[in-house]
Amino acid sequence: MENTTAKPIRCRAAVCKAPGQPLEMEEVEVAPPRAHEVRLKIVCTSLCHTDITFWRMKDFPAMYPCILGHEAVGVVESVGEHVEEVSVGDTVVPVFLPQCGGCADCLSARSNICSAVAHRHGFMPRDGTTRFSLASTGEPVHTFLSVSSFAEFTVVDVANVVGLAAAALPLPPEMACLLSCGVSTGNVTPSLARCWSLRFRSIKPRPTVAQGSKMRGAKRIIGVDLNPDKFEIGKRLGITDFVNPNDTGEKTVRQVIKEMTGGGADHCFECIGSTSVMAEAFESSRAGWGKTIILGTDAGLAPVSISSSTIKWGRSVTGALLGGIKPKDDIPVLAQNYLDKVITDQTHMLCHGWKAGSFRASGACIMFVLFFLMLPAFRQELELDEFITHRMGFDDINSAFDLLDRGKCLRCIIWMDDGAKK
Amino acid sequence: MENTTAKPIRCRAAVCKAPGQPLEMEEVEVAPPRAHEVRLKIVCTSLCHTDITFWRMKDFPAMYPCILGHEAVGVVESVGEHVEEVSVGDTVVPVFLPQCGGCADCLSARSNICSAVAHRHGFMPRDGTTRFSLASTGEPVHTFLSVSSFAEFTVVDVANVVGLAAAALPLPPEMACLLSCGVSTGNVTPSLARCWSLRFRSIKPRPTVAQGSKMRGAKRIIGVDLNPDKFEIGKRLGITDFVNPNDTGEKTVRQVIKEMTGGGADHCFECIGSTSVMAEAFESSRAGWGKTIILGTDAGLAPVSISSSTIKWGRSVTGALLGGIKPKDDIPVLAQNYLDKVITDQTHMLCHGWKAGSFRASGACIMFVLFFLMLPAFRQELELDEFITHRMGFDDINSAFDLLDRGKCLRCIIWMDDGAKK
Ligand SMILES: [Zn+2]
Ligand SMILES: [Zn+2]
Ligand SMILES: [Zn+2]
Ligand SMILES: [Zn+2]
Repeated sequence: MENTTAKPIRCRAAVCKAPGQPLEMEEVEVAPPRAHEVRLKIVCTSLCHTDITFWRMKDFPAMYPCILGHEAVGVVESVGEHVEEVSVGDTVVPVFLPQCGGCADCLSARSNICSAVAHRHGFMPRDGTTRFSLASTGEPVHTFLSVSSFAEFTVVDVANVVGLAAAALPLPPEMACLLSCGVSTGNVTPSLARCWSLRFRSIKPRPTVAQGSKMRGAKRIIGVDLNPDKFEIGKRLGITDFVNPNDTGEKTVRQVIKEMTGGGADHCFECIGSTSVMAEAFESSRAGWGKTIILGTDAGLAPVSISSSTIKWGRSVTGALLGGIKPKDDIPVLAQNYLDKVITDQTHMLCHGWKAGSFRASGACIMFVLFFLMLPAFRQELELDEFITHRMGFDDINSAFDLLDRGKCLRCIIWMDDGAKK
Repeated sequence: MENTTAKPIRCRAAVCKAPGQPLEMEEVEVAPPRAHEVRLKIVCTSLCHTDITFWRMKDFPAMYPCILGHEAVGVVESVGEHVEEVSVGDTVVPVFLPQCGGCADCLSARSNICSAVAHRHGFMPRDGTTRFSLASTGEPVHTFLSVSSFAEFTVVDVANVVGLAAAALPLPPEMACLLSCGVSTGNVTPSLARCWSLRFRSIKPRPTVAQGSKMRGAKRIIGVDLNPDKFEIGKRLGITDFVNPNDTGEKTVRQVIKEMTGGGADHCFECIGSTSVMAEAFESSRAGWGKTIILGTDAGLAPVSISSSTIKWGRSVTGALLGGIKPKDDIPVLAQNYLDKVITDQTHMLCHGWKAGSFRASGACIMFVLFFLMLPAFRQELELDEFITHRMGFDDINSAFDLLDRGKCLRCIIWMDDGAKK
């Protein structure tokens, strides 16, 4: 194979030229990595609902033309100056969330928001330029979420690259790919709920409370989804009850949840990025100690309306990117746990003080809003087949958009080399 | 003195008949306490900004005519059936927040929101009626925040009454009065900030972080207020920096705070109940782990706009009534600490998981939004004179409204018996 180091590479990319329009397979030129950057040959990539959200978006932060895609696994083709963390030939997972390793946030267990390498919409984080251009015209093509994996080659900042140790290499590429976003983010939801159950079983009932025995397990994990197809897989993931907002008649979801739980859920996870659902989740949380955790990504501009009165009754709202995990610290742990068939205790990974006290003392009712696709959110002992519902070649990428957009798939894996597809 | 038990009492009350109108001194009839209720002779009461907020309010939850006032100290005149907790002659503090002592919330350290005795706007909590009527016409007069202390006598649910142990009786009535709301709520702010400093001093610097030494003390406590008069007392309470929104020129408060703190404050307290200030406090909080705590009371209906994108960068928002304290458990402790000149470690009093981990690990920059009156928020070793700026007799109550409304007083104590006034 020709040595491409320090030279531009011409390859195929699925370019998004206008909001909501089918991606167009184009020849693009991928410039060599600059300082602190690596160029990757993508092995496979998966489609996430965030791609769909941006694909449809008409205004900033969407920028056209661009190359979407942010869940992937790749092999390092070449590295720029000052890159010591990974080497040519390494299998790596690019991640939209950076971890420089040296800033106050990266050094703190409380934060997963690197404050040294800032994400820039449409461009590389460090110098605000792009490595992509159309081969035909030379027109620059925007980067997406610092990753742009819907291309045979891409350039990513080293802060956005997680190397997989040799021990993790038996990990199927599909699995590695999902670890870069969907699974890591979603992992915090049903898997976490289940961890609570497990943890509670090893904790003594509290002597003061008659309900002690019930509190040892999360007695209810309520899934809320418009799509009844999600209900079956939900049960296998530990959901105990379902609420379909289309079937609640005169009642609102918050009313139904409050009746089911005797006042509201202890923890409400919003996983789809809809501000109206966030508000509904918040209003469904219990007074006294109800927590709402926002995991879904919205278009980035809409505000959530939180009643300033409701929150004062002891409620709280928090949010997390990538489920609160630190990519470089935690993705390798998830990978290894997957290989070892160990159930990940996700609780140690969440930042923002959601650990120890608040977790152990957390109540038993969880409302889990999963309207779209977060449900495949992974129990490590599950077969991949549980949540990878489709596989296809790069040329069929628009079909993947169509399936996900219609709620007909959970995760679709797109193989760059069609022959490698399982 | 005539035995009034089980009989109506006629006495004077400052009745609010219409929004924003001066209170009118009227003869009212105060019915005897029903089951689980106590009738109190008010000794003194103080004016809180929440009274002003409701005094101005045109629509529900405001209801007219009503008797405002919710910070007070009184003596039990008679008790209804099933009242065993307090006896005739006891000095007690009525509190807007109930604590039944038996519900799941009262039994949990995480909640201060009693779920058994619910507040009802305008009425007694248990049976939804009122004990007040105008002597002249018999027209019912609404209760306010379960207390209605702007009357010589009032009836309060036993869940809303905190008895002061004999040991706490040397407590000046003015102090007891302030413990019922303003001080307890506000105590969580500068006093808490200061507790953090003290706690940090006894905690080892974290070995991984170069800033360890700085983290041992809250290096900055930034007060934000439109009223420059608050700045002097603020300094004595531990505020290190001031921001006056009128003096920030082209910049917004959030921009100024972010520049001062290198990215945003670690903790932002909103103490005045303005939804725009809440949003500004939230946007001034740091990515990664910034927390916004809403302590002020708004009109109860306006929503806070929280950017669903901003919160996902590791921020959180929570709220508390009465600073998160449990009235019957914690007000006696505050009283005793005041008498003993002990600095209250408020950290154990906050519910909602804001303890241990998150407190100890909390950073050093605190933004403290105190536009109105929360600043008198009490350090136990301060003289009362620091925050009680005015005293007057019951007949002058409208002057107190005027002073507080114009930001010319911190706390004004209103003595029912003018002769008792110091
Ligand atoms: Zn994603
Ligand atoms: Zn960093
Ligand atoms: Zn008050
Ligand atoms: Zn209770």
